[in-house]
Amino acid sequence: MATKKQVKPKQEKYIYAFQNKKAEGKGSMKDILGGKGAGLAEMTNIGVPVPPGFTIITDVCNYYYLHSKKLPTGFEDQFKQSISKLEKASGKKFGDDKNPLLVSVRSGAKISMPGMMDTILNLGLNDITVEALAKKSNNPRFAYDSYRRFIMMFSDVVLGIDKSEFEEHLHKLKEQKKIKYDYEVSYIDLKDLIEKYKKIVKAKTGKEFPQNILKQLEMARDAVFTSWSNPRAITYRSINKIPDSLGTAVNVQAMVFGNMGEDCATGVGFTRNPSTGKKEFYGEYLINAQGEDVVAGVRTPQPILHLKKDMPKVFKQLVEVTSLLEKHYKDMQDFEFTIENNVLYMLQTRSGKRSIRAGIKIAVDMVKEKLITTNEALMRIDADQINQLLHPVIDPKAKLEIIAKGLPASPGAGTGKAVFDPDEAVSLSEAGEKVVLVRDETSPDDINGMNVAQGILTARGGMTSHAAVVARGMGKCAVVGCEDIKINIVKKQFTVENYTIKDGDFITLDGNTGNVILGKADTIMPEIEGEFKTFMKWADSVASLKVRANADVPRDAKVACSFGAEGIGLCRTEHMFFDPQRLPYMQEMILADTIDERKVALNKLLPFQTEDFYGLFKAMKGYPVTIRTLDPPLHEFLPKTNEAAKELSSIIGVPFEKIMKKSQDLHELNPMLGHRGCRLGITYPEITEMQVRAIMTAACKLYKKDKIKVIPEIMIPLVGNIKEFINQKQVAINVIKDVLKENKVKLDYKIGTMIEVPRAALTADEIATEAEFFSFGTNDLTQMGMGFSRDDAGKFIKIYLNKKILDNDPFQTLDQNGIGKLVAMGVLLGRETKKNLKIGICGEHGGDPESVKFCHRIGLTYVSCSPYRVPVAKLAAAQAVIEAKKQ
Amino acid sequence: MATKKQVKPKQEKYIYAFQNKKAEGKGSMKDILGGKGAGLAEMTNIGVPVPPGFTIITDVCNYYYLHSKKLPTGFEDQFKQSISKLEKASGKKFGDDKNPLLVSVRSGAKISMPGMMDTILNLGLNDITVEALAKKSNNPRFAYDSYRRFIMMFSDVVLGIDKSEFEEHLHKLKEQKKIKYDYEVSYIDLKDLIEKYKKIVKAKTGKEFPQNILKQLEMARDAVFTSWSNPRAITYRSINKIPDSLGTAVNVQAMVFGNMGEDCATGVGFTRNPSTGKKEFYGEYLINAQGEDVVAGVRTPQPILHLKKDMPKVFKQLVEVTSLLEKHYKDMQDFEFTIENNVLYMLQTRSGKRSIRAGIKIAVDMVKEKLITTNEALMRIDADQINQLLHPVIDPKAKLEIIAKGLPASPGAGTGKAVFDPDEAVSLSEAGEKVVLVRDETSPDDINGMNVAQGILTARGGMTSHAAVVARGMGKCAVVGCEDIKINIVKKQFTVENYTIKDGDFITLDGNTGNVILGKADTIMPEIEGEFKTFMKWADSVASLKVRANADVPRDAKVACSFGAEGIGLCRTEHMFFDPQRLPYMQEMILADTIDERKVALNKLLPFQTEDFYGLFKAMKGYPVTIRTLDPPLHEFLPKTNEAAKELSSIIGVPFEKIMKKSQDLHELNPMLGHRGCRLGITYPEITEMQVRAIMTAACKLYKKDKIKVIPEIMIPLVGNIKEFINQKQVAINVIKDVLKENKVKLDYKIGTMIEVPRAALTADEIATEAEFFSFGTNDLTQMGMGFSRDDAGKFIKIYLNKKILDNDPFQTLDQNGIGKLVAMGVLLGRETKKNLKIGICGEHGGDPESVKFCHRIGLTYVSCSPYRVPVAKLAAAQAVIEAKKQ
Repeated sequence: MATKKQVKPKQEKYIYAFQNKKAEGKGSMKDILGGKGAGLAEMTNIGVPVPPGFTIITDVCNYYYLHSKKLPTGFEDQFKQSISKLEKASGKKFGDDKNPLLVSVRSGAKISMPGMMDTILNLGLNDITVEALAKKSNNPRFAYDSYRRFIMMFSDVVLGIDKSEFEEHLHKLKEQKKIKYDYEVSYIDLKDLIEKYKKIVKAKTGKEFPQNILKQLEMARDAVFTSWSNPRAITYRSINKIPDSLGTAVNVQAMVFGNMGEDCATGVGFTRNPSTGKKEFYGEYLINAQGEDVVAGVRTPQPILHLKKDMPKVFKQLVEVTSLLEKHYKDMQDFEFTIENNVLYMLQTRSGKRSIRAGIKIAVDMVKEKLITTNEALMRIDADQINQLLHPVIDPKAKLEIIAKGLPASPGAGTGKAVFDPDEAVSLSEAGEKVVLVRDETSPDDINGMNVAQGILTARGGMTSHAAVVARGMGKCAVVGCEDIKINIVKKQFTVENYTIKDGDFITLDGNTGNVILGKADTIMPEIEGEFKTFMKWADSVASLKVRANADVPRDAKVACSFGAEGIGLCRTEHMFFDPQRLPYMQEMILADTIDERKVALNKLLPFQTEDFYGLFKAMKGYPVTIRTLDPPLHEFLPKTNEAAKELSSIIGVPFEKIMKKSQDLHELNPMLGHRGCRLGITYPEITEMQVRAIMTAACKLYKKDKIKVIPEIMIPLVGNIKEFINQKQVAINVIKDVLKENKVKLDYKIGTMIEVPRAALTADEIATEAEFFSFGTNDLTQMGMGFSRDDAGKFIKIYLNKKILDNDPFQTLDQNGIGKLVAMGVLLGRETKKNLKIGICGEHGGDPESVKFCHRIGLTYVSCSPYRVPVAKLAAAQAVIEAKKQ
Repeated sequence: MATKKQVKPKQEKYIYAFQNKKAEGKGSMKDILGGKGAGLAEMTNIGVPVPPGFTIITDVCNYYYLHSKKLPTGFEDQFKQSISKLEKASGKKFGDDKNPLLVSVRSGAKISMPGMMDTILNLGLNDITVEALAKKSNNPRFAYDSYRRFIMMFSDVVLGIDKSEFEEHLHKLKEQKKIKYDYEVSYIDLKDLIEKYKKIVKAKTGKEFPQNILKQLEMARDAVFTSWSNPRAITYRSINKIPDSLGTAVNVQAMVFGNMGEDCATGVGFTRNPSTGKKEFYGEYLINAQGEDVVAGVRTPQPILHLKKDMPKVFKQLVEVTSLLEKHYKDMQDFEFTIENNVLYMLQTRSGKRSIRAGIKIAVDMVKEKLITTNEALMRIDADQINQLLHPVIDPKAKLEIIAKGLPASPGAGTGKAVFDPDEAVSLSEAGEKVVLVRDETSPDDINGMNVAQGILTARGGMTSHAAVVARGMGKCAVVGCEDIKINIVKKQFTVENYTIKDGDFITLDGNTGNVILGKADTIMPEIEGEFKTFMKWADSVASLKVRANADVPRDAKVACSFGAEGIGLCRTEHMFFDPQRLPYMQEMILADTIDERKVALNKLLPFQTEDFYGLFKAMKGYPVTIRTLDPPLHEFLPKTNEAAKELSSIIGVPFEKIMKKSQDLHELNPMLGHRGCRLGITYPEITEMQVRAIMTAACKLYKKDKIKVIPEIMIPLVGNIKEFINQKQVAINVIKDVLKENKVKLDYKIGTMIEVPRAALTADEIATEAEFFSFGTNDLTQMGMGFSRDDAGKFIKIYLNKKILDNDPFQTLDQNGIGKLVAMGVLLGRETKKNLKIGICGEHGGDPESVKFCHRIGLTYVSCSPYRVPVAKLAAAQAVIEAKKQ
């Protein structure tokens, strides 16, 4: 149990020792021992061989600050006793000329603040002990270099002398001797250097470099306390909301050396394979070496299994100890060890980083091994990373020439010829070429090109720009908002720094990192392993929030089903109108002068829509399908260029001038806040009528032909006012009655609304009197609630993230403090009117784990996300349940 | 006191008589007598000569509906008794062949439903009484025509025979006789017609037209009950939220005739002059005539004062009676009277309609006459109409050729030559011409042209489009969103229907009606009379909500002061940058590549801004001035055309291509939700620094030079997140400290924020921890909260108003149910953090009376509106206090 915090610590105990397989503290005492100190105590107690040492508790640090850098009464005695005990445990002595004790002095707060505070290694070296170390290691160069480094480190951290003062001398020496690397400096020269260093100390401080080891230790201890309030630590705490009052502990621990002879070694390892998750001992070591030698790559380390031959006894102990650690911490461990004169010391252990694939295998295996529960397994995986399992990725071994970096909008990897025109993308693709579509930004006109591309690269737009949303929906990799690239659409090329990428040059996009890579890069397609299936089954059994998918076409619906979607939460009907076969009819409808003309055009679209919905319903096998009536402003469907307008004119026989005039009339300054959503259906009820007719006719056909009953959910977009909803509901009901009568079929249906205009959330109690379900459109709600156009906000959101004004891109992760308040209000008000109102969310946030958890907490019925994020949302939904239970 | 409603009326009393200066009911019994019945009772009781009659109470109507059109027990007796009493009181008898009683039968609900239910006049005529009437009036044509009309009206209302059946016969007759007007038909022909009418009734109903008068009366009574539930009455009640359960009363009243001889007359009048408000007897009459003769203009009526000579005794009585009515109702009355054989009857009295000018004079006079209190006077005036007193208006007497109608965006009238280009407007105006600027829509580029124009006409945009807002701010008339006109910018002309208005043709705009008038129309400039001042003083003494003005330049500030503004609630600094002298520096700043370049350009703007603010502070004489830092997106300042870009290039030496490139880079799809507001100041802190420096330097100068201390209020726009505000506040404070130090002056200042992004209202508690004041920007809040772009929504708002989806244009009148909820939430949360937080509103709604009242109710400190609406807001603020007291 953690002790209660007090400014004045108890008189009894300021220092907790860990040695001889017995520690005075334990793992749960992070409050006073800090994270590192508690960890060392824990390891010692479970029998892991850890170099002996002691921890000065955090309260001493607090006392030190509150009492003008004085220490509490009785501390000095305990400190001295602790040193004696440490000398005894290590069998070494401070200042001894044969077997001197060297220690590390490290900070360690309750919450880890990596790199923010100071550390001193090899404390205990002076003019006498350095000779002993040289003799004992039989390596004078190592000993003198350690002393040299210690003087520099101690001077920097404790005495406040800038490192550069010392490094300049080393630099000069190397120039003089014409050598390149530090390790080439001879021990003779190092001895000279040490003398120079000591002179610097004298000159700067007026005192000799302290030869008294106890003095060294006291000074180092106080320096660690002081480093708690160095500017970078204060800033770090302020950013990470760590209270200043926590204070830091100080850990004093015996140094051990793996380079004292052939019975010494050092190494690192994992208890399981961090890449595949396979249960196998994994790591590397070097005989007679220091830890940094393993990392530096000067000597080639040996695979850890060879240690069995080199030091069979120690190897056996290592396997036992690391197994113990894994069992104790119930997770795969990443460990460091040193063998000093045939004695094994564990220097560090922590949960090992692993690939998502390994993570899932390990979690599932550990459940089988009864090490953890399924709930614990589910909490081990970062839901967001699951996504990586569903897209091809760049081979991590590949060498890459990265030429630019944008936003990683849609994961996976894509390689192909750069093309700058969607039509060219289509024709090249038809000729069997792989292409990457490069655009300033994409629009619905580009859909065909995007559809055939391996990846999409845009110079503008954010994480929820058109390109990003469509790409994620298609499960296609995309890098967007890559502002460094300058596209010249006329020359069909883009430049970035010194590179010029021309039409047809190969590039590769990495949608996981946002990297744009020159040429082809190797990709791999991760397979969904057996463990993944097991894992997702567990998630499903825990989650209460349902997960649906956003899908517009049967192909997407099938993908969604295969990933376990329990329905379609959003079918955007407008995407169906961009098909080249249908677009002219849509355009004819828009260009109509009278209702009758409009109806003629709509009648041409009716059979297409009916077939679309029939296909969608059939693919979903009776699962609910929510279909949104027409949403985007009509001008999006009209040709953008003179050429396209002329072509359209020749197809549908409407004069070119009239097309241009209509485009001009429909032009809007802020289309996002313009004539779209239900505003269209209210202005032109015949559009809603056609769509509802198609939906219900398809449902009737499915019932009559396939004997499947679907409950179509008709969703009215952009409602802000109950009267808008009533208007469209009435239009729909009239058509539905007709269709059911014509088909002589009885079918249930629901008519509900998007809640995406802030006013809808504010008046959800009113709207719920008429609506049969709500679906939060958090994209638009975020746009309007924050006043961020998702097409334009990319630029300043970047700045806001840099300046820490925003913690996340609000289009990626729901802004729970602001927009979330609107959502929660909408749920509360809606359910005030209708207790069991079905409420979902169909914005991009439906696939973001943090947002999914929020949706669970406020009681939504389901989330809907792009098909490729269905497993992500499912895991997040399960984790939300487990987190709620914990509280 | 109103009696309690019961479905089954009390047995005792179903009918209330009014006759012989004594009524059984009284004015407060509207619940059972209906509005008309209660009014007749009230008039009778106070001694006004009203034709005698009786009222059947509303409960009878309800009983009638609930009991299959049966009447309550005991009703029949009361009905017959009431008829006898009426015969006695009138000295006439139903069916009498000498002196027959004729009556009107009218509906009358508690709440007036004009024209919705049925009325029958001249009931009591039959084949016998018509002869008596002919004899008595010595006017057989009148008698037979009355009978003919009665048959038609009765058949239509009671028997359900369409009027057209009868009118066809009249029509044929007139064709036969080759006459044009009804009154030319002879009484012989009318007698024939009556026979034909009776045959129609026989043919349609199988029965004779009822000759029994009692039968006629019973049938008419039931028809009035029935008309309570005719479709148009039901719709009217549903729209106006009048409960169906109210029921209607039925009023039976003796007819009187002003055309029975030379001792008869009829007339209309007002107790005061409805145009000027002067206390003078005002009206017209005709001897020996019917009421409709006065209105029809066949004979020229006499001024009412002549009646003194014609009928001195009756005239005296009329003056006495109408004075009595005015005193009783405490308001100027509009009355109708008839004199039958020297006996005066008042047929109708009601509060008279009056011009706003007359309204104020009457209200002030009546306070002086101790007829009403000042509070009652304040409630008499429609605050919105006060505006009319401050702008020139079309002479109401002028004959106008109206060619189109748009939205009345800014009141007043403007006549001038139509011009289609702002620069041409300027040059023509400099040459002494008056111009009206005609544009598809205006942008900040047009400011100079708008400034010199007499009025602004746009084809697009709503009540808060750029043209509308700027015009109202300038107090200049504007008609916007006039979609009927088709502007051809190349030919410099517009067409509307058959008219083509070319460059230089004179047109006149009526900003009060939205009319576009061909040619010059006479206008008048109403003077602010003495009573207006008195009236506004009363308003000021009652109101607690302060009223400030939105003003950007000293000229507007002076106007605001003259109208009583108590400070500036919004100074938009960007308007200052559009001045041709400054714009190039602004553009240079935008085109800068580095901070240093940007600072050089900003330094050129600094002296201009400093002088602007100095002038503004000086004009406001120490009143608080709220200055908003830069708000619009930067692309608004860049040239829109190639020519303008080339010109700019030559002025500031930046290559043309760079200017075009920058324009392209800054282009946004939804600028309203883009890089603007504090997002600019956060990206380019040096802009905020320059503006704050200008504000504080100006304040220091005012103090040092003019000894006036101003408290500048620096307002950060578009804040949605406390961190944005903290960022800009810090930037501002740093500069303020410097400026005060440099000037060696101590000055108070406030730093606050706009609440215009929905998220700001949702997190107002957080924002209030740092902000020193709030100002609700309800224009943007409405845009984002409802998802309506004010530049684009004009089109569908029109449709929404037509379809009754919206009751008001939300940019004109605050949407209290939705956006108002956000505002109220912002106030509540803000004051949770800071109890006395100063909170204002500076959207267009600050000048709308209903919105002002809402602001009072939710506890705002002040509203800020365009200078010309300051008196409107002040009156509304006073009315809000009085309304709150009443409740």
